[in-house]
Amino acid sequence: MMKLQWGMIGGGEGSQIGPAHRLGAGLDGAFEFAAGALDHRPKEGRAYGQRLGLAGDRAYGNWQEMLEGERSREDRVDLVTVATPNATHFEITREFLKAGFHVLCEKPMTMTVEEGEEIVRITRDTGRICAVNYGYTGYSLVRHMRAMVARGDLGKVRLVKAEFAHGHHADAADADNPRVRWRYDPAQAGVSAQFADCGIHALHMASFVTGQEVTRLSADTVSCIESRELEDDAMVNFRMDGGAVGRLWTSSVAIGRQHGLTIQVFGEKGGLRWAQEHPNQLYWMPLGERLQVIERGEANLSPEADRSTRVTIGHAEGMPLAFANIYSDLAEAIRARKDGREMDPAADLYPRAEDGLRSMAAVFAVAQSGKEDGAWLDARPPMFR
Amino acid sequence: MMKLQWGMIGGGEGSQIGPAHRLGAGLDGAFEFAAGALDHRPKEGRAYGQRLGLAGDRAYGNWQEMLEGERSREDRVDLVTVATPNATHFEITREFLKAGFHVLCEKPMTMTVEEGEEIVRITRDTGRICAVNYGYTGYSLVRHMRAMVARGDLGKVRLVKAEFAHGHHADAADADNPRVRWRYDPAQAGVSAQFADCGIHALHMASFVTGQEVTRLSADTVSCIESRELEDDAMVNFRMDGGAVGRLWTSSVAIGRQHGLTIQVFGEKGGLRWAQEHPNQLYWMPLGERLQVIERGEANLSPEADRSTRVTIGHAEGMPLAFANIYSDLAEAIRARKDGREMDPAADLYPRAEDGLRSMAAVFAVAQSGKEDGAWLDARPPMFR
Amino acid sequence: MMKLQWGMIGGGEGSQIGPAHRLGAGLDGAFEFAAGALDHRPKEGRAYGQRLGLAGDRAYGNWQEMLEGERSREDRVDLVTVATPNATHFEITREFLKAGFHVLCEKPMTMTVEEGEEIVRITRDTGRICAVNYGYTGYSLVRHMRAMVARGDLGKVRLVKAEFAHGHHADAADADNPRVRWRYDPAQAGVSAQFADCGIHALHMASFVTGQEVTRLSADTVSCIESRELEDDAMVNFRMDGGAVGRLWTSSVAIGRQHGLTIQVFGEKGGLRWAQEHPNQLYWMPLGERLQVIERGEANLSPEADRSTRVTIGHAEGMPLAFANIYSDLAEAIRARKDGREMDPAADLYPRAEDGLRSMAAVFAVAQSGKEDGAWLDARPPMFR
Amino acid sequence: MMKLQWGMIGGGEGSQIGPAHRLGAGLDGAFEFAAGALDHRPKEGRAYGQRLGLAGDRAYGNWQEMLEGERSREDRVDLVTVATPNATHFEITREFLKAGFHVLCEKPMTMTVEEGEEIVRITRDTGRICAVNYGYTGYSLVRHMRAMVARGDLGKVRLVKAEFAHGHHADAADADNPRVRWRYDPAQAGVSAQFADCGIHALHMASFVTGQEVTRLSADTVSCIESRELEDDAMVNFRMDGGAVGRLWTSSVAIGRQHGLTIQVFGEKGGLRWAQEHPNQLYWMPLGERLQVIERGEANLSPEADRSTRVTIGHAEGMPLAFANIYSDLAEAIRARKDGREMDPAADLYPRAEDGLRSMAAVFAVAQSGKEDGAWLDARPPMFR
Repeated sequence: MMKLQWGMIGGGEGSQIGPAHRLGAGLDGAFEFAAGALDHRPKEGRAYGQRLGLAGDRAYGNWQEMLEGERSREDRVDLVTVATPNATHFEITREFLKAGFHVLCEKPMTMTVEEGEEIVRITRDTGRICAVNYGYTGYSLVRHMRAMVARGDLGKVRLVKAEFAHGHHADAADADNPRVRWRYDPAQAGVSAQFADCGIHALHMASFVTGQEVTRLSADTVSCIESRELEDDAMVNFRMDGGAVGRLWTSSVAIGRQHGLTIQVFGEKGGLRWAQEHPNQLYWMPLGERLQVIERGEANLSPEADRSTRVTIGHAEGMPLAFANIYSDLAEAIRARKDGREMDPAADLYPRAEDGLRSMAAVFAVAQSGKEDGAWLDARPPMFR
Repeated sequence: MMKLQWGMIGGGEGSQIGPAHRLGAGLDGAFEFAAGALDHRPKEGRAYGQRLGLAGDRAYGNWQEMLEGERSREDRVDLVTVATPNATHFEITREFLKAGFHVLCEKPMTMTVEEGEEIVRITRDTGRICAVNYGYTGYSLVRHMRAMVARGDLGKVRLVKAEFAHGHHADAADADNPRVRWRYDPAQAGVSAQFADCGIHALHMASFVTGQEVTRLSADTVSCIESRELEDDAMVNFRMDGGAVGRLWTSSVAIGRQHGLTIQVFGEKGGLRWAQEHPNQLYWMPLGERLQVIERGEANLSPEADRSTRVTIGHAEGMPLAFANIYSDLAEAIRARKDGREMDPAADLYPRAEDGLRSMAAVFAVAQSGKEDGAWLDARPPMFR
Repeated sequence: MMKLQWGMIGGGEGSQIGPAHRLGAGLDGAFEFAAGALDHRPKEGRAYGQRLGLAGDRAYGNWQEMLEGERSREDRVDLVTVATPNATHFEITREFLKAGFHVLCEKPMTMTVEEGEEIVRITRDTGRICAVNYGYTGYSLVRHMRAMVARGDLGKVRLVKAEFAHGHHADAADADNPRVRWRYDPAQAGVSAQFADCGIHALHMASFVTGQEVTRLSADTVSCIESRELEDDAMVNFRMDGGAVGRLWTSSVAIGRQHGLTIQVFGEKGGLRWAQEHPNQLYWMPLGERLQVIERGEANLSPEADRSTRVTIGHAEGMPLAFANIYSDLAEAIRARKDGREMDPAADLYPRAEDGLRSMAAVFAVAQSGKEDGAWLDARPPMFR
Repeated sequence: MMKLQWGMIGGGEGSQIGPAHRLGAGLDGAFEFAAGALDHRPKEGRAYGQRLGLAGDRAYGNWQEMLEGERSREDRVDLVTVATPNATHFEITREFLKAGFHVLCEKPMTMTVEEGEEIVRITRDTGRICAVNYGYTGYSLVRHMRAMVARGDLGKVRLVKAEFAHGHHADAADADNPRVRWRYDPAQAGVSAQFADCGIHALHMASFVTGQEVTRLSADTVSCIESRELEDDAMVNFRMDGGAVGRLWTSSVAIGRQHGLTIQVFGEKGGLRWAQEHPNQLYWMPLGERLQVIERGEANLSPEADRSTRVTIGHAEGMPLAFANIYSDLAEAIRARKDGREMDPAADLYPRAEDGLRSMAAVFAVAQSGKEDGAWLDARPPMFR
């Protein structure tokens, strides 16, 4: 099978996100790293790209150069990943989509709801793929949770409980550290800090797993470290369009928790519990029976789980493989288009521009509700109301 | 050491709570079961009391008889436990306090805030002890958490996260079962179901551990099983008088959780996590260090922990011993009064009438806030505002 | 129901074992503490007994006095617990049995196999109960494991894996501490240290759970701290009379393990795993299905489990209640004899003199095999070969 | 950095091991898949290789063709992975080493000790790398354990406890399934089944972590399913050349355990515990202190841990990354040779031919000891005695 050609913007030398994307894209051999504009400093970006094996004429100095260079090639890249600073996601994504490229955009997809709506309109107009990197949904057992809910194992979902709470910004003495401070500064981070950074992963996962979208929410946002203008802890209650009640806690001052992305789903006929720190086990209690441990890789799971697992039961799989599953979905989506066939429905799980837009609407609703003493607000983007 | 004399009202044959109290009171040999009015049916109560070893003249037919009988005795009981149906707690507790007895009342102490205030006034006027049975605070490591916070190990407390979520009322088919239904019926249960039944344990524990009282709260209450008038799931955000932010989740439809009483406390200098299902370990991360496991019974814990532990490290202790610790506190409190000395401060931890009153104020605030879309309400009883 | 009269030898002021027995015997109200010879110093023992509430004439100065005093009383004690130093267990137990008392003897029951056989013969001749305190078998879920095996849930048992490994004697600097040293000194401890102290609990549990007796064994014993003459770590392979293979590890130098009593049983049709540190969960995987969590107190467990549980599901029970279950068994056994009826078979689980004897035979076989490079030796007492 | 050229023998379509190696070799972008003889059926192998992207002239029909084809090329492969059936490892590895290639051989490296010694001699004579794929040693925290022991954190190691116990061959009804049966048939599997398949991973890990080699051992081997000629369960006691005592349990009938590779190391100054199923946490108790949780990716770990970690703390890493670390070591080793420099000592951790040989000697010693009632035998290959 011919490899697909893949390009990247951002993720320069020393970044964490660059190697993660290259690892995810390359892991199954579906994508070949073929082009890049890796650094905001043109010279450094070109040199680093070549050290990573890019041809000299495809190691670009900036995204504009890359757009020009690639759009005119026969063998232009099949997918562009945008991993630049948050404020630039919108413009780059928009321009590449308009030029007919498929895009995988790092989260947050945009800085405003209006921008998000524009991206959604462009994807609809152009028919291009715009995926957003909610990588935690790539875990095999998260996909199995979704499949279990979808096929009715839980009955009607009553309640979703999601958490993304860590303690890595808990040190008041470190609050002025520039590496931390910008996250809590509205001038740089926008209207929300911890919810926008971590909470939206948990909120997207709640939607992903239940197959329901958030309609209304009420938020209690606080800055436990007082010098911070934006929140470092938030509790969000919400309602979903299929009737589920949601509760989401996110924190960056929860000392003792390393990562703390967990999701629990409770339905009429059973309850599920999963935690990112031990992603290879899923706890399932059917109503009136005992708690069971579902193991990643066990026999007779869903097609969605089977497709997204690579090693045998009992051997741990981690985040890089979850990430790779997003790329694997995209490879299948792109190939299906090239081949003029339907894509494998078990791969049709990558997060969409619509998800990126919904997250942005939720971020603004959380920030506003937090200011209004927890007022219940519409969490939907205007175009979906 | 002479045993103290102990009496009980309620807890008749077949009840769960009766044996639990007799076990707790008798476990350390501090109390002798000396009198009782165990059943609302006088004949059955007298017979059962005698089968349990009570003298014929102290196996009473009802609480009024017992009040009359005991008040006139030289060797009258030192402590009366009230474990009757909820709606009768107030009257019985009031009358025994007024007659000069010390009382341990099952929760909820009263059905209204006004009644709660009356009990507090009586205890203040009479100088009698009125304890309320929040038994989970008796666990050795819960007491150690409190001691760690009090001595400053966590610095200023920023955040408390409490949960009491189980799935034992999740079966819609069982919702009409009278054993379950009354709990969700306002005519029998009052203004709140799950919060009043379980949530107040978690809320009291948040106060117990932080040494702070709840001032304001906002609640999101839902009935996941629609036939229920009262809530089976609630999320409560709150603020405490020492500046801590609180978040409390309680549920009876969380299938897969057996008990789910957990508490996490996050301060400037570290974070703590404890769960009732594995009560012999406490997880502690000092800021910037690694997560540590504090074991019940290890050397050099606090006096509060040492006093409330009975078996060596590595051997599990469970709920009955936590319960016994409340009785042990009361025995020390009563003996100190008899001896005219100060009581051991490490035993001065039993929940007070004031705690029972605060819980009742919180119950009404939660119910009201739930009706008002999560409005922030004063959670304090009027007499403490 | 009349309380049974109970007496104790040993367990003086400051001991750990004294309070544990009083708690266990008193917990269900079946036994009344009526007589004792609590200290090897007569005066102190009498005074302490009276402080604990014994009548002056039943607070004895030594066991011989107690034997004389009690044997002549109408209301003599129904059960005598022997909790004196190990070397004295045999003589005291023998004399009380001969005088017609029922006895609960602390482990080890004797110091030699010959003494053990003598005790067994006396119990058979006199018809008296001689129980040995392997208290960990009192846990509700351990009893349920036994019931599951007995009713065939696992099919034929293939393999038992038992561990009792802790790190409390791992400090070389502490090895000369008299509190530790005597345990590793043959003059005081006999032929074995760690196996005799902890290993026999695990070995007895393997027999208790499988319903099979050990026939042959091979041991690898080592002194990790070289100054010790007796072993601080041992691995024992064994075979059982029902065909099961056994593997047992015991250690006192396993730093990081607090207690480490665990048992795993693997049969043709499923596997079980239990750990003393979290005794309220039992892990069960039926062949070809998922791992399940059996909770203490859940509905529809065995009669043996139901009888030995006191608090509702989700609330922890610990070691003191396990201990109390041994006393509860004995109370039922004694009452059944008094009433001339069959005892409840679900209570007929207390460890016997035969178990104490088998342990002693295993101790000698382990010590000998350890000296003979792991030679396989008969582990049965001569009288059972 | 130029990619290294990599070739593979075996791992044809439908195999599990082929994708695992391609994933591991490709994950960091250090190796390019350039040549292969993937199937014992030449036509299928050539076609599959081309589908995987190999050039037509480097998609070989068998290993002999590949040896001829590659040895004459300028751009011959830098590393050959041998992932063929066990009985062919020796011959292929030998011939490629002799022809001057570096080799990564799947385990077991050979079927006899003599063959193993021959491989070791060839590597010494030719100076070529011969690595053996004990992939579990690639986990970041396993490498950190080794570093902690090496730098003295534990003091002298007293005891190693290793387990590799699963239940995937526990179904007697499945014992005749050809997919399972061959493993227990001496004609196909050699002298040992479960120990040779899984036990040697655990034994190698014991050596890897302690930096000590096994000298003597005693084994108890059993066939729990009676129709099996070779063992499905074994307990091995051993001694190491640095004075450590070892205990190793391996089983394929332990129903309820998925994988069960765990290692515990106990030294004078502390104890460590790690389990493959949750590989991102390492439990460490320094003598006299509390149990601590070391997290993969935390700050200030060893260079060995830092080099072998790819994602941030709190995000799980799994087996594929461990596997990739072996390839990463080899890439560094090969590059250092090309560059004429010393390799990074933190990468010098890949298992050697000597390790493969030692495993084979242990396999024969275990099989023989098992037949001789657990006799203690020399576990070293003759050339290392």
